[in-house]
Amino acid sequence: MPTRWYNFLGDLPGPVPPIRDSGSPSAAEIAARVRPRALIEQNGATEQWVPMPGPVAERLRECGRPTPLHRARRLERHLGTGARIYLKREDVLPTGSFKLNTAIAQAYYAAEEGRTTLVTETGAGQWGMSVALAARMFGLRAEIFMVRCSLEQKPYRRHYMELLGARVRSSPSGETAIGRKILAENPGHPGSLGTAISDAFERALSNPSAAYLAGSGMPHVYLHQTLLGLEVAAQLKAHGEELGVAGRGDHLIACSGGGSNLCGLIGPHLRAKAEGADLRFLAAESTAAPRLTQGTYAYGRTDLGGFTPEVLGYTMGESFIPPPNHVGGLRNHHSSALVSLLRHEGVLDAVAFDQRTALEAGRLLLQTEGLLLAPEGSHAVAAALEVVAKSDAERLTPVIVILASGSGFLDLQGYHEVLLEA
Amino acid sequence: MPTRWYNFLGDLPGPVPPIRDSGSPSAAEIAARVRPRALIEQNGATEQWVPMPGPVAERLRECGRPTPLHRARRLERHLGTGARIYLKREDVLPTGSFKLNTAIAQAYYAAEEGRTTLVTETGAGQWGMSVALAARMFGLRAEIFMVRCSLEQKPYRRHYMELLGARVRSSPSGETAIGRKILAENPGHPGSLGTAISDAFERALSNPSAAYLAGSGMPHVYLHQTLLGLEVAAQLKAHGEELGVAGRGDHLIACSGGGSNLCGLIGPHLRAKAEGADLRFLAAESTAAPRLTQGTYAYGRTDLGGFTPEVLGYTMGESFIPPPNHVGGLRNHHSSALVSLLRHEGVLDAVAFDQRTALEAGRLLLQTEGLLLAPEGSHAVAAALEVVAKSDAERLTPVIVILASGSGFLDLQGYHEVLLEA
Repeated sequence: MPTRWYNFLGDLPGPVPPIRDSGSPSAAEIAARVRPRALIEQNGATEQWVPMPGPVAERLRECGRPTPLHRARRLERHLGTGARIYLKREDVLPTGSFKLNTAIAQAYYAAEEGRTTLVTETGAGQWGMSVALAARMFGLRAEIFMVRCSLEQKPYRRHYMELLGARVRSSPSGETAIGRKILAENPGHPGSLGTAISDAFERALSNPSAAYLAGSGMPHVYLHQTLLGLEVAAQLKAHGEELGVAGRGDHLIACSGGGSNLCGLIGPHLRAKAEGADLRFLAAESTAAPRLTQGTYAYGRTDLGGFTPEVLGYTMGESFIPPPNHVGGLRNHHSSALVSLLRHEGVLDAVAFDQRTALEAGRLLLQTEGLLLAPEGSHAVAAALEVVAKSDAERLTPVIVILASGSGFLDLQGYHEVLLEA
Repeated sequence: MPTRWYNFLGDLPGPVPPIRDSGSPSAAEIAARVRPRALIEQNGATEQWVPMPGPVAERLRECGRPTPLHRARRLERHLGTGARIYLKREDVLPTGSFKLNTAIAQAYYAAEEGRTTLVTETGAGQWGMSVALAARMFGLRAEIFMVRCSLEQKPYRRHYMELLGARVRSSPSGETAIGRKILAENPGHPGSLGTAISDAFERALSNPSAAYLAGSGMPHVYLHQTLLGLEVAAQLKAHGEELGVAGRGDHLIACSGGGSNLCGLIGPHLRAKAEGADLRFLAAESTAAPRLTQGTYAYGRTDLGGFTPEVLGYTMGESFIPPPNHVGGLRNHHSSALVSLLRHEGVLDAVAFDQRTALEAGRLLLQTEGLLLAPEGSHAVAAALEVVAKSDAERLTPVIVILASGSGFLDLQGYHEVLLEA
């Protein structure tokens, strides 16, 4: 397992566009209050390698890192493809999701700074489960605002968090001013990552010993997730693969909501691509919030309460309410500045899928490889199937790496409703 | 990963008591029709090592064998114990349970003999999920009778099986004569492994190309599960541990329903104990069906339809209906002949827990080690906690191995109801 993170900020195709921060208090002032200092510093890290604190490495090892890189030979055979398909199996982590990688690091830094409570939002619940476990690891409390429709669809994730002692609330929440405001305007609001981020910020600001943790979207989160791309690089080598061979069309594919499993996978490989490696990066998003494929490149906020600065990114607009589908991790209305920059500069390709297409890809993976992924990861599988079809038509034999971001055991109700009841 | 199974029939403290088979047709004739021949032969294997077919080994490796042996240092620290506690982590297998080890082997043999459909019963659903996946691996159909109360408690396991294309029915079933008879007598019957085994046998007998597969209780199942004990032996050695050091009170602990995770774990270690190693084997059962701790040692059947022979074992009696708790894998009314023999001869200790005590032990494991086990495995954890308390009181420093038989993600409703709602 790598014991340092790779800071790829120096490998971007250009500077990340500046934020607009005109609020009062400013988003920077808010961040200074609620975000652990070490994480704010990591957002602007300049060194190429950031050492991982010993206790973080220890916990990650105990959780089963490095996770397996699985060659999907049966899927390859089923498709009759010349491509070699690999799955980076984050589903085997104890919380069933890659989110644990950064949750452990962030909880560690919060505890080191004397914070006693972690406050955050969660969409489908994977991030919330990981924060609940990481809080417990470092003796902290956890308060988690879960998007209302996801909470109703995925009650088991709530049960898991509560078994760990976390306090779980529905978003929009009647416990916050912003939540009450949203509910007053629209009592049936299904919730979104925008509402939940707002609830969590307001709550964290109300408690001086609380830290607000971000599950995605921020450079420090991407930094922690570079374990994914670093492990993949080492594991591909162990499989005898060389990534980026000219004329082959190798692909690294991940779903993208806040962008952290995507950036964690591709971040350590940006430099190779910039230097000419034949390597494609592909983001799979949901048609429920198709920012990278159909959004506008504009300034906007990721929250609805004015707690975060305006950032330049592909967006559906702040008034956009994503439909309440089963893909809670991909319902963000605004893509992060960094992912949007990669897309804008042509480094990153993107494709959107409706949930049925994604879940059908997930079922195919289950039926061939025996692996059930969460709906988010199934979007990456759907994207890979398209790449395979195109590669085969062009007689290419690429290496394709799919980030299997999490387990779908707790999403079986969604699979059932979409594929079996319909 | 071991590539042969260990046949411990020669290491038992005496001969397995003969069956009584007076039915017409006899249970042996029924077995000859519905059970794959290779499995019947393995029930009476005489060689000490049975080679594993190549395709079985290949599938098991793809599924992630060998599974990790995890040192539970945080649980040890929490308990302040001098014991060294290890967890054999079967929860990481793709179906979330150790049942996959034998499902793959049995499906392979059934396919080799030209059977096209696998029929079986399942309690909590772990065995059914494993058969559904194994059937898909070898191109077979699967028909699964799931105990009614478990089906209602754990709908996600049904969804999983159906995603794989399996046909899932509630037991007692209106599709079989025995099921209709049971329902006529007791329309509210919650189902049991006895009803489900009966449904499955009748169904398998009705289809000449079907094979009936047993999830536990039979020597061939125990044989396949000896991978557990073999891997544990090798992994303990890699951890620098020697098992069975005199005066230390080392323990191998597993829950016991049909007895397959227990026998798989201890089978390869029976000889060492017989030869004087200081090694205790401990079965954790449910107070819902406390056969080994409170049952009678008597002849009886594991099914209700007369499809199986009478075997000598610890039993609650054939008319016993276990309460519909969340521990579907431990609701058998009759313990297998082999497990009962070990118990009767004093080789095996046993202890029973109510579901609340077991689930509390499971929650403690989650809160310390971050691992959520199915309720069945949590019984083994509860047993280990008792052993730890006793060892500490006697100032012993044993090695304790807990068979973490499966993941509890799909049992979160049960954890919720018992620990959070109560």
